[in-house]
This record gives sequence, structure tokens and C-alpha cells, in this order.
Amino acid sequence: MNALPAASQPLNQSVTLCVDAPMRLDSGLELGPITVAYQTIGRLNAERTNAILICHALTGDQHVIGPHPVTGRPGWWETLVGPGKTIDTDRYFIICSNVLGGCLGTTGPKEINPATGKPWGLGFPVITIGDMVRAQALLLDHLGIDRLFCAIGGSMGAMQVLQWAVSYPERVRAVVPIAGSWRHSAQNIAFHEVGRQAIMADPDWNGGDYLNQGTVPRRGLAVARMTAHITYLSEPALQSKFGRKLQDRASVTYGFDADFQVESYLRHQGANFVKRFDANSYLYITRAMDYFDLAAEHDGVLARAFQGTKVRFCVVSFTSDWLFPTAESRAVVRAMNAAAADVSFVEVTTDKGHDAFLLDEPEFHDTLQGFLDGAADMFGLPRGLFSGIRP
Amino acid sequence: MNALPAASQPLNQSVTLCVDAPMRLDSGLELGPITVAYQTIGRLNAERTNAILICHALTGDQHVIGPHPVTGRPGWWETLVGPGKTIDTDRYFIICSNVLGGCLGTTGPKEINPATGKPWGLGFPVITIGDMVRAQALLLDHLGIDRLFCAIGGSMGAMQVLQWAVSYPERVRAVVPIAGSWRHSAQNIAFHEVGRQAIMADPDWNGGDYLNQGTVPRRGLAVARMTAHITYLSEPALQSKFGRKLQDRASVTYGFDADFQVESYLRHQGANFVKRFDANSYLYITRAMDYFDLAAEHDGVLARAFQGTKVRFCVVSFTSDWLFPTAESRAVVRAMNAAAADVSFVEVTTDKGHDAFLLDEPEFHDTLQGFLDGAADMFGLPRGLFSGIRP
Repeated sequence: MNALPAASQPLNQSVTLCVDAPMRLDSGLELGPITVAYQTIGRLNAERTNAILICHALTGDQHVIGPHPVTGRPGWWETLVGPGKTIDTDRYFIICSNVLGGCLGTTGPKEINPATGKPWGLGFPVITIGDMVRAQALLLDHLGIDRLFCAIGGSMGAMQVLQWAVSYPERVRAVVPIAGSWRHSAQNIAFHEVGRQAIMADPDWNGGDYLNQGTVPRRGLAVARMTAHITYLSEPALQSKFGRKLQDRASVTYGFDADFQVESYLRHQGANFVKRFDANSYLYITRAMDYFDLAAEHDGVLARAFQGTKVRFCVVSFTSDWLFPTAESRAVVRAMNAAAADVSFVEVTTDKGHDAFLLDEPEFHDTLQGFLDGAADMFGLPRGLFSGIRP
Repeated sequence: MNALPAASQPLNQSVTLCVDAPMRLDSGLELGPITVAYQTIGRLNAERTNAILICHALTGDQHVIGPHPVTGRPGWWETLVGPGKTIDTDRYFIICSNVLGGCLGTTGPKEINPATGKPWGLGFPVITIGDMVRAQALLLDHLGIDRLFCAIGGSMGAMQVLQWAVSYPERVRAVVPIAGSWRHSAQNIAFHEVGRQAIMADPDWNGGDYLNQGTVPRRGLAVARMTAHITYLSEPALQSKFGRKLQDRASVTYGFDADFQVESYLRHQGANFVKRFDANSYLYITRAMDYFDLAAEHDGVLARAFQGTKVRFCVVSFTSDWLFPTAESRAVVRAMNAAAADVSFVEVTTDKGHDAFLLDEPEFHDTLQGFLDGAADMFGLPRGLFSGIRP
């Protein structure tokens, strides 16, 4: 981190918005004021045209570049974001905000409800992907950015950037949904429901009031994470990484310890996750994903969502992703084509499953690089390092 | 049920075995006496050559034909087993026993440990697929059946019948492993581990001692079942059956109720399962599946497991089964071929996923019918109804 030039150091900030008037949510409820915690990297050019919004996934956060304040680990997209990297912080001004309903500084169920002086818990209103994006738009207002050069996101981030294109087509030039879909499938809703049931089954969840009760539903949240984690990988990747290898033992123990490496790995994933994530946030954010359906908002015809759009799209999927399989990206692309939108589509061959968007995948990075370069040139963004402001 | 001729009525019995000498388990521990609960249907011919052993799956039991003693519902394989059906009870003598470690009458963790006078709980020894098959062989001894005409099973049942071919090649003429594998994959171990963690996370599990403590780990077991249930279906089947359809409501409720039909369905699956299944049995049986690896017992070379076998095999897989994908059956077939075994292989096209083996799948039924007819003719079994004994 310290080797980065000053302009490429991440700035972690937060701002309180909707102070005068609350935000209207898709549910019809109102919420405000809201705090949005965000990270910026790089400098905004004088024309304010080089901003890239990065939208994080379900369990991600604003710390694209580390160190992470809780885990101390590198940011979740350091493979992709930095000076001279695919998302070049010498060229672009990067913004990533913790989503509404999140648990790393943005208003969510673990924050204090001003009306009660206590954590919201289940009193927090159920939010949608649309609400998350609305909060991001308010953040851009605050930063003085009328129009994004690009919105990029994987998984739930892909849902957000598609929502950006639909809700604010005038405010974003290019959109890159990676490993995403226009709606959550039945199987994905099912996996989310299992995770929620695991959390709610934990007596330490206390009907969602655990922060006031002084408990933490660690076991339930860990089980939720373990289930979800399997879906982020691929069967071939699990097989080649772990297979039936045993964990620090020569033979099975005829017991319920983690005999197999894959068991030990999963337990480790669960245990680490509960240190950094709030169980109620997990409920709210999974629910927002379940509710996401861009076609439903347009009489069931997805193409209508993109009618007349001037946004340039680059849709990316991964061959071994079974959580958001290529067929779903293909359906999005078909709808964009039907709306005569400007879209390119790349299915990246990889055995790394859904999580490939977080990993070092040269074909994916090259695809993104090519798209960003082309779009930047078309929109007249200067190449190379420049001086600018850090709003 | 009452319409069935007397010979086709199921007989539910149990027998206590290993009274004089305990059974030696793969773990090296000894267990005995053991009780085996089993169902028979049809009549054993005078030559005792027409017996088919049906091996049940993880959460199955001996009630191939109903009514089930707990749920009152039909048996789990009534689509396939009955007079004139694919597995013709007019022609064959059917045996299905509750597996060792099970919870419907066979010795398992919920039964009384004679040494303590209390339920075994986690004091029950960890058993393997090999141990399950050993107990079945003892049952056949008791029934006076030296050699099975056929052993048939799906999922964990497929593991057992493959183990039969390997452990007792002289005692079985034909073997039909359906939707199975020669070993549990990393992904499958991972899903099992999540289920076990869900059970163990439930405080009502009480370290496995819940029967003595008067509690039932319902919530944990339900979560385990819900997770597993998703893996038994296919994404296309979930999509076509449920999609994003709402449960008895016109629009989402912006809450955590089961808004979607798929959520309601899963909750229902979980709630029903805990009424009929024991949580510790779930731990033991999943563990037995995880430990299953026919190649490992043969220096990692699966073909050696089948060397010199005279068993006729019919391997069946389903295109949309992602729990035991066709590739695993294909690997089994390759090993059988390498051992010059007599094997036919059919991949059935279906969108019903792993559970297709339980459902009305004409192509699967026709395949099985053809194989059984051919094998029965080859082995000189008389066709049609005959009188025989019910041992």
C-alpha cells in the first residue's frame, strides 16, 4: 500500500445525506437522514468526466483497495484496480460506496435508528437494489458528479449497474455487469432463503434484536456463509483444489472433525466471515437481491428496460459460474440487442466459478481493459496520468 | 394399497443379528447385536434366485411401498415397484432394509445402546457404506439367500450397490447404480458439512445428546434438509416449477416472510423432514457417504475394484443431475470397461435433477426394465407370476 503514489491511495470517507428530506424507498417507506460510507481512489478531472463507480457484491464493501479496517487484508479488487492496472487509478476517479443496508458505515440494520437511539435491527426497512442505486446517485450529487464514465460491478454489483443503466441512463456512459443477471433465479432465492433460515434459527439472533441483547448469531451466520460459499466456486475448482485430500492427517478419523480439507476450508470461511459481517445486513441484502427483477418493472419485457438507451454495455460471464450462469447474461444481452443498445458480450472460459470476477483472470481483465479504453477514447477522456481534484 | 394382491403387500419386519459375535466395522470397532428393519415384497422362488435388494438413499428407508409408518404417505419407490411394474413384485422377491445408522428401526444413533440403556447419540460408532452393506449381507444370510439376482439403488443406494459388487461379487448377479458415484466429490462433502454444521449449531442438538436431554434440533435439521433439497433438484426444474412466482400474494411484502413459492416450498420440506428423521442419523449417514471411495480401497485405481467380476452392470445417470453428474457415472463405466466387466450405461435426458431416480421417468424405467428382463432371461428366471415363499 505505501508504495502507491499519493493520488492512488484510497480515501475512506462518509457523508450524511437526505438531511432535509428523507429518501423514498421502493417499499413506499421513507428513510433519512442516511449515512453513506465510501472509498475514492485517484483524481476527478476538471471536466468531472472520468468517474467510475464500482458496485460491490453481497458480502463486499467499499474497500476496493485495502487495508480492510476489520480484517487488515488487501481490498477485494486489488487485482483489477490501481495505478496502471485494468481499472487505472492514474486515469480514472474511482468511487465505491458501502451499499444501503450494509454494515461497514452506510446506514443499515446495525446502525442506530435516530427515532429510538438503538440499532435498527428488523425495524430497518426492507430495501431493494433500486434503493441502493438511489443512495449512490445521491452520493454522486454530493461529489458533484453529474455523469459517470462507467459503472462496473460483479454479482450483486452487476445488478446495481444494470439498475443504474435503467434508472439513470443519462447519468452513466458505460456499464459493465459481470457475472450477473436481470433477476434472481428460483435456485438463487432458494439458497438465500436457506442462509436466512440458518441465521434466524440461531437463538442468538434473538428475533433480530441481538445487538440490544448482547448476543451475536455467529453459528447461524457461519452456516449461511458456508452454504453460499459453495455456490461461489465451481465443482471442478473444488475438485482440483481439495478433491478428497485430508486435513493434516493420514487417514480419516471416523468422527465429525474436519477430516477433509474442504471441510476445514469451509469452516474457516464461516468463522472469518462472522468477524466482519452483520447477520441482519445479510438478511436485508440477500432480500434485496431476491427482489431484483428488471423485467418485472417493465411489464415482464426486459428489452423495454433498455429502450432508447445510449449507454454502452459490456456484459461478462464465466463458463463455470453456476450461480449466475452464462445463459442469464445472454438473456440480458438479447434484451439489449432487442432494444438496439450498444452491447458487447464476452463469456470468459474459466474453472473458477462465480468468484472468477474477484480473481486474476487475464481474459476477463483484457476484456474489461479493451472495453474501458475504447469507451474512454470515444468519450474523449485523456490517456495517462493527470492532475485533478479529490472531491 | 388394499388393491394389491396378498403376495405384493409389503411385509415390514425386523431381525436382531450378530447376537453371538459382534460385527466388525471398517473403523475397527465392533458393533453387536444389531437390529435390521426391513421390508419384503413378493415371493422368493424355490431356487431362491429371484431376490432383488433395493438400497435406499440418504433420507430414504425400507418403505419402498407404503404406507409410511410416520408420514402415512406412499412408499418412496411406488412409481417403480409393484405387480407388473418395472421392478415386478409378481416376478421378483424384493428386499429393502433400513441402513445401519438409520432411524427407522435399524440400529443407529437414536436406538438404545445396550451398554448404557440410553440412546447411542454420538457414542454410536461412525459407520461406512461398507458397513451398511455388511449388515445387508447378514440379513440375506438370515433370509437364506446366498445370491441376489440384483442390487439396485439410487444416490447413496448406488454407492451401496457398487460396494456390493466389490465386497460380495459372488453374491450378486446384476447391479444397477443410479445417479451415483464411486466416491463423494469435494463439492458433495462440502454440502454435507454445511448440513452437519447447521445441525450442530442448533443448541437443541446438545452435543448429540438431545434424546437424553428431551430436546430436538428441529431448526438445524430443517436447515440441513433445505440446503440438501436444493441439490436434489435442477436449476431448470426450479425455474419452471417456481420461477419467481409469489406465494398467495399479489406483490412482495418487503419483509422476510416466504414471499416466493420456492421459499414456502423449501420451508415445507424442512418442516416435514424433521418429523420423520433423526438429526444424529443425518450426521452419521452423510459421514458414511463422505468416506465412500471405492478407488481408495484399491490403491486409487478404480478398475481394480471390478477386476475379474462376473457381475452384470447397468449404470444410469441423469443429464440435469448436478449432485452426481453424468461424468461420475461415466468414470465408473470407464473403470468397469477397463476391468472388462459387462456394463451398459444410459444417460437419461431429464430436467428433474438428481431426484429423477425417484420420479416417473419413462426413459429410466424402460432402461431398467430392459436390463432386468435381459438379465433375468440370461439367468433363467421364470417370467410371470409364480408361487413361492415369504421368508
